[in-house]
Order: sequence, then C-alpha cells, then structure tokens
Amino acid sequence: MADTIAAISTPPGEGGISVIRVSGADSIGAADRIFSFKGKLKDVPTHTVHYGHVIQPATGERVEEALVTVMRGPRSFTTEDVVEISCHGGIIAVKKVLDLVLEQDVRLAEPGEFTKRAFLNGRIDLAQAEAVIDLIRAKSDRAYKIALRQVEGTLSKQVKQLRHRLVELMAHIEVNIDYPEHDVEEMTNAFIRDKCKEALADLDRLLRTAEQGKILREGIVTAIVGRPNVGKSSLLNALAGESKAIVTDIPGTTRDVIEEYVNLNGIPLKLLDTAGLRETDDIVERIGVERSRSALTDADLIIMVVNRSEPLHEDEKLLIEQVRDKMSIVVLNKSDLPLQADLDYIQARFEPERIVSMSVKEEEGLERLGQAIGGLFFGGQLEMNDMTYVSNVRHIHLLKSAMRSLEEALEAVDGQIPIDMIQIDISRAWEHLGELVGDSAHESLLDQIFSQFCLGK
Amino acid sequence: MADTIAAISTPPGEGGISVIRVSGADSIGAADRIFSFKGKLKDVPTHTVHYGHVIQPATGERVEEALVTVMRGPRSFTTEDVVEISCHGGIIAVKKVLDLVLEQDVRLAEPGEFTKRAFLNGRIDLAQAEAVIDLIRAKSDRAYKIALRQVEGTLSKQVKQLRHRLVELMAHIEVNIDYPEHDVEEMTNAFIRDKCKEALADLDRLLRTAEQGKILREGIVTAIVGRPNVGKSSLLNALAGESKAIVTDIPGTTRDVIEEYVNLNGIPLKLLDTAGLRETDDIVERIGVERSRSALTDADLIIMVVNRSEPLHEDEKLLIEQVRDKMSIVVLNKSDLPLQADLDYIQARFEPERIVSMSVKEEEGLERLGQAIGGLFFGGQLEMNDMTYVSNVRHIHLLKSAMRSLEEALEAVDGQIPIDMIQIDISRAWEHLGELVGDSAHESLLDQIFSQFCLGK
Repeated sequence: MADTIAAISTPPGEGGISVIRVSGADSIGAADRIFSFKGKLKDVPTHTVHYGHVIQPATGERVEEALVTVMRGPRSFTTEDVVEISCHGGIIAVKKVLDLVLEQDVRLAEPGEFTKRAFLNGRIDLAQAEAVIDLIRAKSDRAYKIALRQVEGTLSKQVKQLRHRLVELMAHIEVNIDYPEHDVEEMTNAFIRDKCKEALADLDRLLRTAEQGKILREGIVTAIVGRPNVGKSSLLNALAGESKAIVTDIPGTTRDVIEEYVNLNGIPLKLLDTAGLRETDDIVERIGVERSRSALTDADLIIMVVNRSEPLHEDEKLLIEQVRDKMSIVVLNKSDLPLQADLDYIQARFEPERIVSMSVKEEEGLERLGQAIGGLFFGGQLEMNDMTYVSNVRHIHLLKSAMRSLEEALEAVDGQIPIDMIQIDISRAWEHLGELVGDSAHESLLDQIFSQFCLGK
Repeated sequence: MADTIAAISTPPGEGGISVIRVSGADSIGAADRIFSFKGKLKDVPTHTVHYGHVIQPATGERVEEALVTVMRGPRSFTTEDVVEISCHGGIIAVKKVLDLVLEQDVRLAEPGEFTKRAFLNGRIDLAQAEAVIDLIRAKSDRAYKIALRQVEGTLSKQVKQLRHRLVELMAHIEVNIDYPEHDVEEMTNAFIRDKCKEALADLDRLLRTAEQGKILREGIVTAIVGRPNVGKSSLLNALAGESKAIVTDIPGTTRDVIEEYVNLNGIPLKLLDTAGLRETDDIVERIGVERSRSALTDADLIIMVVNRSEPLHEDEKLLIEQVRDKMSIVVLNKSDLPLQADLDYIQARFEPERIVSMSVKEEEGLERLGQAIGGLFFGGQLEMNDMTYVSNVRHIHLLKSAMRSLEEALEAVDGQIPIDMIQIDISRAWEHLGELVGDSAHESLLDQIFSQFCLGK
C-alpha cells in the first residue's frame, strides 16, 4: 500500500473551491514537483497552508493558482502523508491539476480508497468507515446524527465489548477443555448459559434499534392517497415547502439527489415517485389496478387525506378499510371549514393519535402531522437520546447471525452437547461481530463496501 | 464592509470534502465559538490547519468532524481574515455547519461576494475578478488559459498602461489650457494626434483578439449537416468521445453543464442542440424549413459531411452552394472506401484547407479536422502565444467605446475644435478604460457583475 493516490474530493461541478486530495509516501514529493511557491513543501511544518501556483514541471508554465495544505502522517485522514490542493474550481481547472498530479507516479484513487486506507492503517474500523458513507448521504438531521455517532465509534465500541466478553468466555471454556479435572461440568454450563444470555440481551437491544435506524437512514416510504380534490397535492406542496428549507439555500443542489425526500420535523419521508402520486388521484376508482395497489403495498406509511368539510364518500369508506390495518394516518383536511364528514366513523377505525385535523391551505397542522408520524414510528420518542442505532443492512445481518450462533450455543448447552462443539458456536458469533468492525474482513468484502463511496473520499 | 460573511464554497452535492468559507473581521472569533480543538483559533499562527469538532455552542454537542484553516488578512483571498471549514461533505453536514456559523452574527455571502471583497479591498481589479468567473466556467483548455492569464492581470496591465498614457496626455493639454502662452497650438495638436493614434492602435490590437477570445470562451457554435447516412451521427459520436476524455473521469459531472460542448484539440465546439442536429438529417430535403435554415444561420461553423464513396447527390450540390461562402468545412467521409464522389466539383468550391478527408468509422482524421477548424478560426496559430485575449462582452464594449472617444478626439483635432473640447473626448476614453478595470465602477454595475458568480466564490 506504499503507492500514492489522488482524486478530486469535492463534489463535481462549478464552485468556488475544488480540492484534490493526495495520499501516500510520495504525496509531498509529487506536490513539490508541480507546485511553485517561495519554499519547498517537504520543508514546511505539518498542517500548514501555502499559496502558490501549480505549474507544468517541464516548462514552468503556470496552470492554476492554488492553496496547498500539507498534513503529515499519522495526523491525517489516512494516517499517511496527505496533501490537499485547493483550486479555483471549475471542471477544467481541477482536471488539469489532477492530470499533472497523476503524471507524478501517482495513481487515481478508487472510490472510497482514502477511507479504506484510514481503515487498513487502523485509524478507524470498518463500521466507522461505513458510517462515513452514511454521513455523506444522510437525508435528514437524525440520519446524520446516527451516522456521526457511528463514525465516532459508538457502535464499534459496543460490538468490541461484546467480542471481548465472548473471548473471555471462550478462554474459560478452553481451560475447561484442557484441564477438565479442574472444573465441574455443571458449573461451566451454567456459566456459559449466563454469559450467552447476557450477550443475547445486548444483541437484542442493538437490533431493536434497527428498524428505526433503517427508517431514519433511508426515509419512511410514504404514499399520500385519497379522493380527487381533497388536498393531496397541496399537502405534498406543503411538505415539499418544508423540505425546501433544507434544500434550496444550497443553490444548484442537484434535484435527483433529493427529489423524493421531504423532511418533516427531522423525519425523512421518501415520497413514492410523482407518477405514483399522481396515480393515487384516482386510487379509489381504480382499486385493483396494479399501480395503485403497489403504492399501498410498498409504502411504510400511508397518509390518507379526507376533506372533512364534506360527507364521507363510499369510495373513502372502502379506502379506509384498505389502510386501517397498515401504518397509516388520516388527515382531516380543510379544518378551516365547517365539519361535515362522519367523524365517528373514522374514530371508530383509527386511534386518536392516527387522526390529524389540519388545514393544508393555511399550512396549519403540519407539525401535528409530524408528531403523529413520529409517534407511529418512534413511539413518541422524537427526541433522540444517546442510543446507538444500527442502520446498516450489513450490520443488522451480522448482528442477527451472531445472535443465531449464540442461540445455538444455548441450545447446545441445554442439550448436553460436548463443550468443544459449543465453543464452535461461540467463536462463530465472535467472528460475525469481528466482521462487523472489520477485524476479519475479506478483501472482496472490503472492495464491495468501499466501492459504494464517491471518488475522492 | 466590516461584517463577516460565510458560504459553502464547494460545488453542491455529495463528495468527500465540502468547504465553508468565512471572511471578515470576526471570522476567526465566530469559528472559535463553534469549533472545539486543543487550543483557540485566535491564538494559532496564520495559514495553519487544525483538526477538531464543530460543536453546538450551547450544548457542546458534536455536530461534525472538521479541519479548520486560518488565513489572516491581508494574506488571504479577500485580504480579510478568512477561515475555511472543511467538512465530511454531504448536504446535511455542510448545511448544519453553515447554519451554526450564520448564528454567530455572520451573514450569508451573496454570490461572488468573496471575490467582490477581494476587488473592493484592492487585491484584484474588476477585469481580474470577472476572469475568476471565466476560470470556473471554462469549457476548454484554451478558454481556461485566457481566463487564467486575465486573473493574473495581463489585460488589466495593458489597460492601465493605456490609461496612464492618456492621463499624461491630459496633463499636457491641461498645461496648454492653463498657460496657452507657453505653447504653440500646432505643436500641441500634432502631439495629441500622435498620442491618440498610438492609443487607438493599441486598442485595435486588443480588440482584434476579441473574436477569437469570445470563441475560445464560449465555443464555436457548430452545425453538422449532410444527407442521411453519410456519417453525421458517427462524427458526432467520435467528437463526443473526444470530449468524454475530459468529462467522464470526473464522475457525476452534471450533464447539463457541458452537454453541448465537445473539445477538439483544445477548441471548444458548441454543437447545436441535438434536436437541431437530428433535424439536419433531412436538411437537404427540407431546405426552406425554418429549423434547418436557422441551423445554417446560427452556426459559427458548418461541418458538411459527404460520403466520398458515392457520387455526389444533387441535394449535396445544392447544400454546397448554401455553405461554401460561410465558415464551413467539408468532411469527405469513408476515406477507407474507394473514391466515387466528384472531388473536382468540391475542390472548385472549397480551398484545400477546408476539405478534410477522413474515416469517421476508423476514427481516422479527427485531428486533421481539428487542425482545419483551428486554421479557419485562428489562422493556423493553434499554439497559443502570450497574447492577451479580450473575451468578455463588457470589456469589448468598453474598449470599443474608448476607441470611439479617441476617434472623436482625432476628428476634433483635425477640425480645429477648441482644445478643452478635445480634452473631454480623451477623458471619456480614459473613463471607459477605468470602468473596465473597475476604477470608476458604479455599485449597480458591481452588483450586476458579481451576481453572475456562484455562491461561495
């Protein structure tokens, strides 16, 4: 891993600053060959910034004004010597400078390779590295907080403690296997049983956060349904207006990155695609039509909008039957007009906390809708506590596998299976947890994980 | 201008690094309040980088890992104290940090406001500031080089020299007005005439670069025309393939930024929109159809593709008559097959350097096409010399205005107009040139110029 790598680390596009990150043994040497300023980068103190010009080394021709930052290992993102070249921005400028860097025996970094090096060099573990992607992709404050906590290693810490206890347990068993005369089998079994149960409880606690974690990370897939003209589009716009507060003061944010997300009280809602939403206009008339049906099936959450200033329509009663047993909320819209809808009918079918009276037109009640959704998905615990959320599918899978292995160990204990067989189950659980933090990760797994990164990270 | 401003300076989107730039008297103070590391930023040496955490000042809660760079004025982009906060990237992270900064009595920067401050604080002049936009937007190497040279002040230097000479001339005239008894009118007139002619020659020389400069900056609007199946689409693809070499190794580069540009030997071709190009498929059949006609009219360059392995079609002869007097090049495609077309007919109508034989299929001859275009537009001077190109429409307009004023001064001299009237013409020329470098720029003009910038620059 001695070779030096480089990539453009800022998002592509026009901007005031673009940064090229270079990492590896020769990063400072390579930068010195193409950067002209009053001294030499190899002589400057670490963590200093220098103004000068990127030059064509052969001709001395100035290619770009730049600020160059030198960060010597191990105090750097990768723990290697890192140079960051900050250019004017613009596609041409940054490409020219990158090309010059790559001519200095420097290789273009693969996606995620900087983070991979941080992992391989031991600065962060695999779960932390994965959280870096989540940080970049976070669609809401809560998702961001979960990722940040994970980058800082809270999940890793708990998993490592668990592993440590499993190692102690295995050591204990090992002693028993090697010196059976020193131990009473019954006592050992009781000990193993206790330790496995403890570990299982911890795993269960972690996994219980998984559903919420996943939702916070990926958004609640939401379908807005109802008869025509009850205010579905207005609700959509009101929600989108909320989300704009997050999105549009970063001008030019590419629409496709966030187009399906709205952010309500920090809860990310992933709205079913606009086609789907338009489709739901006639969801009642077309019940049975594939598309409408799949909107109801695919959604984590159904928001049914009813115009409370008109009597309930037969179609709406039909729809209520369809959604009442799902994760759904009824919005009684047009609360500014006199009530005409049969409230009793609705209240007989939905708990009070799933009924939100609001006036979308007046943008009145959006917050209550957010609270209702929060209540439905997070049991009202909207304030995030210091819990560690498991949100990554790979982690969930490994935690479940570890659980299964420990359950098998427990069964083995109860079934009087020889103790070295039990040992195998426990060490398997230990390995699964090791894979989570990257202690026993295969190269192919690493490739797969880091290839999800953007270039330059 | 004492207030402190901040903005996200990297392009919007997902990336490894996003940078928030803060500039102004309180930039370091503001950063200190939300950034926690082992010291205080106010105490660190200038041009140093510090690893730590952005925190919520009220609670101390960690919001983001960050690298913070301190650059004290006047050694900074704006000449003010500047702090750059480098975050993990991702929309949420950078937005959260920006929000925290903006809570510290810091104002969101207007587009271009950092560059505007660099101008108002005297670090760069207006022409240099404008070139910063061109740098960011450059679509080709040559356009980039022109902009870079202008950022470095080559145009400004020439304009300032010209102004200086006009000031000397005005001083000379002033003496003559104040002390007419010291001078002979005839001699003064001769002196003014010489000096005006000198200045006019310089202006003319600058303006003669304008057309090339503008083309390099904005691209040569190019229409590819010809009968169906002669290889127009293949040529388009081959050209696009060239451009891909520039574009696609920056993954995710937003298509719409560059979609119409291809880059041939460093010459930017702006292809008429695809609809227009498809339209040209039947350009011959549909001559007279509005769209086809406008493709021929709007283009700076017409590339007519002919299949040289078939006899010339009557339609093609018609088309040749249409394009021969325009900036046009004939591509004799399918040079890998035996020649059947009437070469004499074509050679009688186009100079040899406007005829390019090539095999698009074999990607053979693209470079020659580039040379032919270079020859047509730059008189063969494809290698850029140290010329200063004027490429900005505002600059061209002001140079022309200055020229007109000096021409009027010359006419006045020849017409025996009183010398204080001539003085007015000369001072007007001096003012036009001043406006170019920003010496006498109005606030509204500044607003207009800097509003073209992206945020964070």
